[in-house]
Amino acid sequence: MLGAIEAGGTKFVCAVSDNDLNNINKISIPTTTPEETFSKVFDFFDEYTLDAIGIGSFGPIDINPESDTYGYITSTPKTAWKHTDFIGAIKERYSIPVGWTTDVNAAALGELTKGAALENDSCLYLTVGTGIGGGAVVNGKVLEGFGHPEVGHILVRRHEKDTFEGFCPYHKDCLEGLAAGPAIEQRYNKKAQDLPEDSEAWDIEAYYLAQALVSYTLTLSPEKIILGGGVMKQKQLLPMIREKFAALLNDYVSTPDLEEYIVSPELGDDAGVTGCLLLALEEL
Amino acid sequence: MLGAIEAGGTKFVCAVSDNDLNNINKISIPTTTPEETFSKVFDFFDEYTLDAIGIGSFGPIDINPESDTYGYITSTPKTAWKHTDFIGAIKERYSIPVGWTTDVNAAALGELTKGAALENDSCLYLTVGTGIGGGAVVNGKVLEGFGHPEVGHILVRRHEKDTFEGFCPYHKDCLEGLAAGPAIEQRYNKKAQDLPEDSEAWDIEAYYLAQALVSYTLTLSPEKIILGGGVMKQKQLLPMIREKFAALLNDYVSTPDLEEYIVSPELGDDAGVTGCLLLALEEL
Ligand SMILES: Nc1ncnc2c1ncn2[C@@H]1O[C@H](COP(=O)(O)OP(=O)(O)O)[C@@H](O)[C@H]1O
Ligand SMILES: Nc1ncnc2c1ncn2[C@@H]1O[C@H](COP(=O)(O)OP(=O)(O)O)[C@@H](O)[C@H]1O
Ligand SMILES: [Zn+2]
Ligand SMILES: [Zn+2]
Repeated sequence: MLGAIEAGGTKFVCAVSDNDLNNINKISIPTTTPEETFSKVFDFFDEYTLDAIGIGSFGPIDINPESDTYGYITSTPKTAWKHTDFIGAIKERYSIPVGWTTDVNAAALGELTKGAALENDSCLYLTVGTGIGGGAVVNGKVLEGFGHPEVGHILVRRHEKDTFEGFCPYHKDCLEGLAAGPAIEQRYNKKAQDLPEDSEAWDIEAYYLAQALVSYTLTLSPEKIILGGGVMKQKQLLPMIREKFAALLNDYVSTPDLEEYIVSPELGDDAGVTGCLLLALEEL
Repeated sequence: MLGAIEAGGTKFVCAVSDNDLNNINKISIPTTTPEETFSKVFDFFDEYTLDAIGIGSFGPIDINPESDTYGYITSTPKTAWKHTDFIGAIKERYSIPVGWTTDVNAAALGELTKGAALENDSCLYLTVGTGIGGGAVVNGKVLEGFGHPEVGHILVRRHEKDTFEGFCPYHKDCLEGLAAGPAIEQRYNKKAQDLPEDSEAWDIEAYYLAQALVSYTLTLSPEKIILGGGVMKQKQLLPMIREKFAALLNDYVSTPDLEEYIVSPELGDDAGVTGCLLLALEEL
């Protein structure tokens, strides 16, 4: 039996499957403090005898096996979770092999193996929610170097109508600081989901995301870019992003047809959990 | 015997080596028109009997073997070279296997195999010269997806003192448009090499390059970033870039020590040719 923890900034999704990835059970737990959240995670997994567990965590996390803080969440803006020994907590409770990467690397792997990038060797997965996070797969392998991608924090140019200062505690007005859900909420004093479909907010949002996608395209040249997360539930955004992407790139490099290139997740909310189960499977 | 062509925007460097990569002969040919330049390239290689040739070309180039224009230089700003069938021209003259990637991917491979990134599995190589181009190696392999990296054209935020409009024919004020050698020259009406060491020009230059390096770091997480090209001959630039990089990243992710992370090429001008010879060797 395989376990999966998709540890997001708002909720932890925990799942158990058989070794063919068929779902056995799944729950969602709010992300509060490590003590409270882990205690509910344990309540869930204690019912099963797992062979391995795969974790995809919000970050930054330490993925360097040589490091003293391997398996930790490191400098996250979520203060309660700074310097949390995630793998340590899991291994202490269950002595089983643990697969470990970012939530968004897991989602990228899930979508490549079972979802929107099934026919590709590479993809970039971006989630636009409480934060903006991205993961990637290159030549079929999760992208890791000295660390893991943190594409949500690249710098973007300001939209001419935008005066919001940005909310990233590290960079103020990086991409996440200007375009994650809380930025939209703080800019308009209204939850993103409560803004009208034709609000200027979406023009600003699409401009920032398109800029970022141009940057990722020119740096990574992925075969597909998959956009998920709460903010992308605004269905008008995807075509606006494609249009602004084309204008900014100005045909300098030829990409796949944009309808095929910039797409929604096919696994929906299951991308991350699927990737975590795949990570667990690799540990067997 | 192996052949190498490092095809840059200003000059072509052609080399011949034995199969252990020991140099036999090498020349530099100015990049003018395809007819003129290729005719000098042929004059050079006609003297030898090569087993394979590796080409690292300025771009964008078509690297998709399924494509009708595989082996072409495609939409380059250098008008005379648009839609040039590079592999076609070489294969017509010499019926030998051809390795083919960008000049900067070749340089990245050269530096990883024989130079500054010898102990790493990944690196990014950036050249700041007539244009700005970058290549990368991930898990020991040259980075290619639907195409190849074109990191020189990402968008950056303007330096507050900079009013130069930018010279990129595709994007005006992308990184290349604001920070390649000709941008410095047009901003000050003076060749970059003729500006004083303490000119404000270098502050502006370091700001743009540091921004770009933050973006590459957050996207690719390479183990090393290597900065070459004519503009980097200004020795004061490297420490200025490291300083601004640290300020912009603001410790959000931990990188290797910056003196080890952002470095000069060790192969100097030989990085590209070395990578091309390695590409030729792979073809044997
Ligand atoms: N339908 C919607 N339209 C726009 N924004 C939404 C919508 N639903 C949720 N959001 C925003 O998405 C963010 C939550 O993102 P989500 O991906 O659901 O969770 P998390 O990123 O915490 O895992 C919140 O800022 C919320 O306002
Ligand atoms: N010592 C120097 N200091 C600053 N800029 C220089 C220096 N030497 C050359 N350059 C600039 O570098 C550019 C040429 O780059 P180079 O890497 O030599 O060639 P290319 O990019 O064409 O292959 C020119 O714009 C030139 O002004
Ligand atoms: Zn940030
Ligand atoms: Zn450009």
